[in-house]
Amino acid sequence: MINLRNDYCGVCHPKVLDALVKKSTNVYVGYGLDTESSEAENKIKKLINNNDASVYFTVGGTSTNKIVIAHALPSYGCVIACDSGHINVHETGAIEATGHKVLTVPNINGKLTSEGIEFLVNGHPDFHMVKPGIVYISNSTEYGTVYNKEELVSLSNTCRKYNLYFYIDGARLGCALTSKVCDYSIAEMAELCDAFYIGGTKNGLILGEALVVTNRKLNEDIRYAIKCHGGMYAKGFVNGIMFNELFTNNLFFDIAKQENILAERLYNELRKLGIKFLFKQETNQIFPIFNSDIIDELSKKISFEVWSKEEDMTCIRFVTSFLTTNEDIDKAIKVIKSYL
Amino acid sequence: MINLRNDYCGVCHPKVLDALVKKSTNVYVGYGLDTESSEAENKIKKLINNNDASVYFTVGGTSTNKIVIAHALPSYGCVIACDSGHINVHETGAIEATGHKVLTVPNINGKLTSEGIEFLVNGHPDFHMVKPGIVYISNSTEYGTVYNKEELVSLSNTCRKYNLYFYIDGARLGCALTSKVCDYSIAEMAELCDAFYIGGTKNGLILGEALVVTNRKLNEDIRYAIKCHGGMYAKGFVNGIMFNELFTNNLFFDIAKQENILAERLYNELRKLGIKFLFKQETNQIFPIFNSDIIDELSKKISFEVWSKEEDMTCIRFVTSFLTTNEDIDKAIKVIKSYL
Amino acid sequence: MINLRNDYCGVCHPKVLDALVKKSTNVYVGYGLDTESSEAENKIKKLINNNDASVYFTVGGTSTNKIVIAHALPSYGCVIACDSGHINVHETGAIEATGHKVLTVPNINGKLTSEGIEFLVNGHPDFHMVKPGIVYISNSTEYGTVYNKEELVSLSNTCRKYNLYFYIDGARLGCALTSKVCDYSIAEMAELCDAFYIGGTKNGLILGEALVVTNRKLNEDIRYAIKCHGGMYAKGFVNGIMFNELFTNNLFFDIAKQENILAERLYNELRKLGIKFLFKQETNQIFPIFNSDIIDELSKKISFEVWSKEEDMTCIRFVTSFLTTNEDIDKAIKVIKSYL
Amino acid sequence: MINLRNDYCGVCHPKVLDALVKKSTNVYVGYGLDTESSEAENKIKKLINNNDASVYFTVGGTSTNKIVIAHALPSYGCVIACDSGHINVHETGAIEATGHKVLTVPNINGKLTSEGIEFLVNGHPDFHMVKPGIVYISNSTEYGTVYNKEELVSLSNTCRKYNLYFYIDGARLGCALTSKVCDYSIAEMAELCDAFYIGGTKNGLILGEALVVTNRKLNEDIRYAIKCHGGMYAKGFVNGIMFNELFTNNLFFDIAKQENILAERLYNELRKLGIKFLFKQETNQIFPIFNSDIIDELSKKISFEVWSKEEDMTCIRFVTSFLTTNEDIDKAIKVIKSYL
Repeated sequence: MINLRNDYCGVCHPKVLDALVKKSTNVYVGYGLDTESSEAENKIKKLINNNDASVYFTVGGTSTNKIVIAHALPSYGCVIACDSGHINVHETGAIEATGHKVLTVPNINGKLTSEGIEFLVNGHPDFHMVKPGIVYISNSTEYGTVYNKEELVSLSNTCRKYNLYFYIDGARLGCALTSKVCDYSIAEMAELCDAFYIGGTKNGLILGEALVVTNRKLNEDIRYAIKCHGGMYAKGFVNGIMFNELFTNNLFFDIAKQENILAERLYNELRKLGIKFLFKQETNQIFPIFNSDIIDELSKKISFEVWSKEEDMTCIRFVTSFLTTNEDIDKAIKVIKSYL
Repeated sequence: MINLRNDYCGVCHPKVLDALVKKSTNVYVGYGLDTESSEAENKIKKLINNNDASVYFTVGGTSTNKIVIAHALPSYGCVIACDSGHINVHETGAIEATGHKVLTVPNINGKLTSEGIEFLVNGHPDFHMVKPGIVYISNSTEYGTVYNKEELVSLSNTCRKYNLYFYIDGARLGCALTSKVCDYSIAEMAELCDAFYIGGTKNGLILGEALVVTNRKLNEDIRYAIKCHGGMYAKGFVNGIMFNELFTNNLFFDIAKQENILAERLYNELRKLGIKFLFKQETNQIFPIFNSDIIDELSKKISFEVWSKEEDMTCIRFVTSFLTTNEDIDKAIKVIKSYL
Repeated sequence: MINLRNDYCGVCHPKVLDALVKKSTNVYVGYGLDTESSEAENKIKKLINNNDASVYFTVGGTSTNKIVIAHALPSYGCVIACDSGHINVHETGAIEATGHKVLTVPNINGKLTSEGIEFLVNGHPDFHMVKPGIVYISNSTEYGTVYNKEELVSLSNTCRKYNLYFYIDGARLGCALTSKVCDYSIAEMAELCDAFYIGGTKNGLILGEALVVTNRKLNEDIRYAIKCHGGMYAKGFVNGIMFNELFTNNLFFDIAKQENILAERLYNELRKLGIKFLFKQETNQIFPIFNSDIIDELSKKISFEVWSKEEDMTCIRFVTSFLTTNEDIDKAIKVIKSYL
Repeated sequence: MINLRNDYCGVCHPKVLDALVKKSTNVYVGYGLDTESSEAENKIKKLINNNDASVYFTVGGTSTNKIVIAHALPSYGCVIACDSGHINVHETGAIEATGHKVLTVPNINGKLTSEGIEFLVNGHPDFHMVKPGIVYISNSTEYGTVYNKEELVSLSNTCRKYNLYFYIDGARLGCALTSKVCDYSIAEMAELCDAFYIGGTKNGLILGEALVVTNRKLNEDIRYAIKCHGGMYAKGFVNGIMFNELFTNNLFFDIAKQENILAERLYNELRKLGIKFLFKQETNQIFPIFNSDIIDELSKKISFEVWSKEEDMTCIRFVTSFLTTNEDIDKAIKVIKSYL
């Protein structure tokens, strides 16, 4: 079975696991107040060229989103997202469970636009409606697309204009930043928003996300929110060790870039075979469309997720991970060819 | 520095880490639906001799408590605990953040009693007050004490009498079950309650708790609650691998028992030196009382937490972990002797 | 100034106020457990021909919606509504503040359809997404339209098929039931749903809604939810007296019918003048569309709300209330004519 | 039957009802933005001698408490109260339903002390515990006692010292301010706190409380919180009319004072008969203690609530209301005498 189901399918990148093994007899203080976390934080602050930022290592994407959004909003505040946003669709109401509405506009290729934000802000003028307080995007998006710099600048300006926090869910930030279409550095992105997280779970770690907060007001007392919303990790130093390794010798970017390259190769080969895609390939997720009658057979040889169905065509999702090899891609192409 | 600060101070027990390394090139499906989780679940079901139970591997204690309690209660329902209960004191309002009151009575040696439950139930007779719906205890308790069988049977009967779920926080369940004062098996305990969790974080794992649900009604749709309350672990198979190893060759119990033995030795030696304790030693936490003027010096040689102060006496907490050795205990005794 | 702004613009219908004055020296028990509430409840149960129903008199529409929806749902449950639903737009996130997502589909003339429900239910198949648990409609709708029997039967069947509660917000139920297009009685409607409320605030009372619960499971412990979500009225007997009067000699229906008739007359006269409307008139709300340049002048003579603007046209809303007279309508027509 | 059960037993004070009748053909705008509300607000601002204050007319005590507390706190914040506080006991978890813990210390005669606040603040030093953000007291208290000026000043200073909002639940504020033991004016009290509400429901109105906010930061956007937490009253002008009347010719104080005088007379007469009380009489609630064996008989002649039982003695509560007369008190004394 060729695995193209997701990017959280393997335990851990070997270098990260080595680091854990090497440090497994050490003793650390808990709750992220340890030296490894502190070192990892400093590396990230250097990377984004912002010594005033704060970095917190949390346990997962959904709980990180809960923490930031619940922390940013007053009780009647809402978060703006596009309809395909992870917080709107795939978190079982986790944001609403903290008491806040997710206000949405239709996505454009998985993206939220400044026009969308303006439309929602203008449509919510008084106390009979929720008050927008924070904007959420994911980068790369749920559809594997990447915001370009112009789009981010525009979103950032719109947020500042309307006094909204700007928060970026970076579950797959590595793949966004190493995409061939990406025209900015992580430091440039960090300047444009108030908080973002660097996804570890989908970039080779056992678990863990690095929440980076650059807005001082948003940063205040945020450890309380982390604990209250269930995202505090007793053995925070494990995250510290892993992120420390991830930001050593460029590993974070190397893992992501390799995933992008493999996805691109698969995408190009399939296009040569005449296969259509729901979106252009930009990162490690691609969405080929097949005749529905081959899906069952295909799924016996390749592991993937079905994305959507329309009459006799079915769109599926292939995702490359840190475990994916060139051989996997060769085999996948061969299998698919055999069904065309 | 001798570490007696807590039991979540080291990365992972070597056997568990070995298992992760061995399986680190495997590919798994996400969200706990993998074969490792399934194997680990089966081992736990066998251990408690209950084939109808369900087991879920979650990311941490606070979020597991949130999940179970929020899942068990209607919007106006409350959870009963003793005042020293972890959910009442050390979770930054995580339970209240799900909308529910923690209703408390004073603890007796860290324990909740049936009389306490009766008192609260009788004091909350109508719709002007919250409605008790679930009872929470931790075993071992926050004070390191262990419920005996008679106490658990009594609590269980009281819960059934008043139609309350009975839930046991087992963050340190290993130490409770392997305590010299424990007079029941995990299977006997499981029969008395509706749900409990087996703590991994404080028993040698990188992270993770095994939530065991034996009540069928409580079990319904609980995966939704796990995701909604931020406790779903994308790489659930990592927990699967770790718990699988933990319940191989008695490792879970061996780790805990060794911690208890070391704590007991330290306790006995200190008592011989005339030192008083806040509670009798039953598990891996002990609470010696020293003259306040030696605390500062002591803390330069031994890492520990200050528990409480009263005038010129200070109670501190020593905790043994899977990393603690006989040599650590020897050294600690020597250091303490030097200050008496 | 001619008032056509809303139907909650005057203190109280004179007959209801008389009843309050007459009974103002009586002594009652609190919290709706009084004889007046009990009499009013019996009248409503007789009206819907259901002796097993329960009726609760609450303080307002938003809090009644909060109560029913929060009571119906588990922590990860969501409510289905159409996008124009009051709970989705005009309650400042009151439903989300109880922890629940409002899941929406586009409205058809202000209405939710069975197809919409099916679409949402099928799109939410597993624990990664919220679980639909209750369906919300308002009747009459936010656009003044009325569900016909076929539509209600279809919605009811769909709810039963998918094990969803069916709840009707009747803030303007009087106007729906007395609409010329309504083809069912309140008893027939009551049979099709699990709970609904009869709006008093917008039908001549000082305040108050009558929440009717016909589903036994939903009814369980609901007084706790009423208190917990802030909808318990200490002087419940005031609601009792008012609803008692409202359901004496058909007053509830007479008030609503008169409002409908006046709105219809205004609608017909304006149509004769060539004015277009956003929706057909069915109840006491009508939505004429004018050239934007007359709106300012019009607003000096008539009080109304602006509904929406598109380029040079503006849709406004006229609402008749228990205070509206035939003379008001005459004057309004005359004013409008003068601007055409 | 002599009614001494509570102070929310009658529809409305006749003068207030007259005002409603007189204005019942007027047309007003909704949601408290009307002229009557504005006039009433101005009267209250003049009364407290603070032109910068804001006043909002809400529907009930529990929802007003929800609004203020949820508005004042971040997601991990908690409210400090004494254990007998209304929000802790008699609101069915309404505060917790907004996500916040009620942190308590034992009351002293129904009161919270500065020492109690200090104890809780010092016991909650870091992010593992909830963060105190607002202090709640009721005046008069649940036991009918009244804070004196020294106590209020001390509480106020403690709140300022620890950066806590200070909020006073004035459900029975009239009775506190007109108590013979009260040594401050409403203006002096207003200066010491950040927000308080003036109870209308228990002081002769059909319903309604006047929330007075003097702290500018707390005032920001509070209308959103009022709507979100279900306390917005569509016909806000009804509250406006009633409070306008209540603060005309001293009516608010006259109603309360008369209640206090009647309660004092009953208290003094019963003490002459040798009856003991749980608390000294200070306002309109008194708590006599009788032999338990006469309670049943007594309850056939007088309507009251049982407060607490201890062995063969029972404490009951008598409350005077705007409907209570001197004759009621005479009769009550006569009845009680007949059982001694």
